[in-house]
Amino acid sequence: MAVNLSTPKNLLPVPGVRLAAASSGIKGERDDLALVVFDPSAVVAGVYTQSAFAAPPVWVAKEREQIARGWLANSGNANAATGEPGRKDAIDLCQRAAAVLELESNSLQPFSTGVIGERLPMDKLLAAIPRLANSLDPDNWLEFASAIMTTDTVAKAVSKQVTIDGEAITVTGVAKGSGMIKPNMATMLGYIACNATVSGEVLRQLVVEVADASFNRITVDGDTSTNDCFMLCASGASAMSPIVSAEDPRALHLKHTLASVAKTLAQSIVRDGEGATKFVTVTVSGGASRAECLEVGYTVAESPLVKTALFAGDANWGRFCMAIGRAQIDGLDAAGVSLWLDEVEVAHQGLMSASYSEEAGAAVLAKEEFEVRIDLGRGACTETIWTTDLSYEYVRINAEYRS
Amino acid sequence: MAVNLSTPKNLLPVPGVRLAAASSGIKGERDDLALVVFDPSAVVAGVYTQSAFAAPPVWVAKEREQIARGWLANSGNANAATGEPGRKDAIDLCQRAAAVLELESNSLQPFSTGVIGERLPMDKLLAAIPRLANSLDPDNWLEFASAIMTTDTVAKAVSKQVTIDGEAITVTGVAKGSGMIKPNMATMLGYIACNATVSGEVLRQLVVEVADASFNRITVDGDTSTNDCFMLCASGASAMSPIVSAEDPRALHLKHTLASVAKTLAQSIVRDGEGATKFVTVTVSGGASRAECLEVGYTVAESPLVKTALFAGDANWGRFCMAIGRAQIDGLDAAGVSLWLDEVEVAHQGLMSASYSEEAGAAVLAKEEFEVRIDLGRGACTETIWTTDLSYEYVRINAEYRS
Repeated sequence: MAVNLSTPKNLLPVPGVRLAAASSGIKGERDDLALVVFDPSAVVAGVYTQSAFAAPPVWVAKEREQIARGWLANSGNANAATGEPGRKDAIDLCQRAAAVLELESNSLQPFSTGVIGERLPMDKLLAAIPRLANSLDPDNWLEFASAIMTTDTVAKAVSKQVTIDGEAITVTGVAKGSGMIKPNMATMLGYIACNATVSGEVLRQLVVEVADASFNRITVDGDTSTNDCFMLCASGASAMSPIVSAEDPRALHLKHTLASVAKTLAQSIVRDGEGATKFVTVTVSGGASRAECLEVGYTVAESPLVKTALFAGDANWGRFCMAIGRAQIDGLDAAGVSLWLDEVEVAHQGLMSASYSEEAGAAVLAKEEFEVRIDLGRGACTETIWTTDLSYEYVRINAEYRS
Repeated sequence: MAVNLSTPKNLLPVPGVRLAAASSGIKGERDDLALVVFDPSAVVAGVYTQSAFAAPPVWVAKEREQIARGWLANSGNANAATGEPGRKDAIDLCQRAAAVLELESNSLQPFSTGVIGERLPMDKLLAAIPRLANSLDPDNWLEFASAIMTTDTVAKAVSKQVTIDGEAITVTGVAKGSGMIKPNMATMLGYIACNATVSGEVLRQLVVEVADASFNRITVDGDTSTNDCFMLCASGASAMSPIVSAEDPRALHLKHTLASVAKTLAQSIVRDGEGATKFVTVTVSGGASRAECLEVGYTVAESPLVKTALFAGDANWGRFCMAIGRAQIDGLDAAGVSLWLDEVEVAHQGLMSASYSEEAGAAVLAKEEFEVRIDLGRGACTETIWTTDLSYEYVRINAEYRS
């Protein structure tokens, strides 16, 4: 049911980055284990779920950020709510892979996605590691994207190139995610690598800003995963002189490209949202702060009554008013609020627009992609988030997830 | 699909209160208009939606609380997002009814529930008023409950009696609501009357405390209506001496009975929640504050992934951890959190209980009613809320609401 999303093409290898995927048997014949290894010149930065139930692999990945030489990710089992035993599993798995690769034992970051509350099937995973380590190749980005899928119906990946200091810098990223999607600092899971040469300090700043412009602006169901991670690697496999300050104009240039890749990936997650039949952009302008724009945007985007109306293509605009009205905004005056569906003005300063017709509203909602634009009429701030509708299929997928 | 809910029986008239219902044609042949009139000795207090898009009838009802002699409620049209014209409609309707009843023109409080964003069909409503006013009777509580239904499948009403000062005090209440249910100070709509003799000041205090113990502890979909109101009337048609202080032991006695009626009504709304197949009690204990217990409770109760698991009867307990983990609680330590499904301990201090079996969990979730109990392990506070699952039927009802 993905909305205008197809299997990625023309993915570009990133100098200094090799990848592999294999099947350990967790998801039947399908690949469920992926390995990414960087040149020694690489630096890595990430943002991680803020869930109080953050999974053990997330604890380990955070600790190893500044010494990371690669990523080891499995799907089908989240290794979450597994405590110290789960932490040991994640460490053991990485250690085995590091040994085969002749790397320091703590140089790989672990990631897991799938069912919460079960221990990893360690025998299966350990047995798959030699095969995995022996098939590393710079051209395996699509295999990486496929191996980390769970309820995803389409693999998510994209490449861009930019020239910095006369050097061709390639940025390639992958992501997975379909449900349990309201990342809080990151989504489950996003990875972007480039061959730029960047200091760790600058990269750590970039990853936060890039996440804020992309993965932190999407919601499928308002649920935040225990395993969300968004990782950025700059392999340093280029002739450019290092970027050591975030004020360097080249950092802004690189950030722009990274954010573009991240936004495409984040939107891909929404397009492949569980049961999604619509891709909806919610823009809130006229806010006194960015925070209040986000509060209104998320309240609208996550309202079950709004989402079922989007699914039905029902221009029941009172539901938008309902959701705006219940957002936690001090002193919001309904008489200042206006609403558009694409270019159709629905409500002007709290009342139905004189020019509005049900037919015009329904014509917008009949489209697969459209914008809900809300102006709060009390400030200069704007925020945009992306979301989906709520369909029978969402209920089916999640009612039958484990059966 | 209501969960263990049937048409109310044995409703008791409340001395000093007369009621009527009629059909104006908004909902076809069904009654859609109700009138309640009190003896001159009555006092009224209410709590009203805190939505920034509160509907015009709510504005008028609030203004008239201290001079109210009755309630005029319609269903099928919420008269919301209609601004000043909507306010005038509400006033005109009440004025017409007051004229027929020979009451002061501003002595009735208006209430509306139904579709948001459309003007009231004034001709139809005004034409029904004389019939309505001529059929007032103390025994019409079930007719009142039925006339205010929208997507409700069962009328909601209950009576209790208590003896105060040797006087039989009757408490009878009705409510409506099925979707757009996360009341914020009140639900859409709840009305309770009794013949106790209470000062307006005490009644205004009681209504807040009663709402907090009942209507403010339920959620179906997390959406708050523009028209929520919970009203309390003490008709004074008894021989008891007036209660003029909230410290009076009789006030506590009365509050207990009022809260019991309100809780039954609030739970009826959840039992009749749109598409509900389960009635679930979420109890959060061990919190450092009541606020954090409520934050965790509502996050769990409103999580689409939890709700679809409840619908499926899938003991996917990781989803409870996920929802607890994303609640906005500072410094929550997963290692302190324990989880039960009824008496079955699922997780102990963040990890799956040694005694837990999937079969035991599934047996609880197969029931129509059960408790999800969460202990945060960091304090002495407890809160309880009531909720439902998320089924295909919820999506169908709301996708087809206006078609």
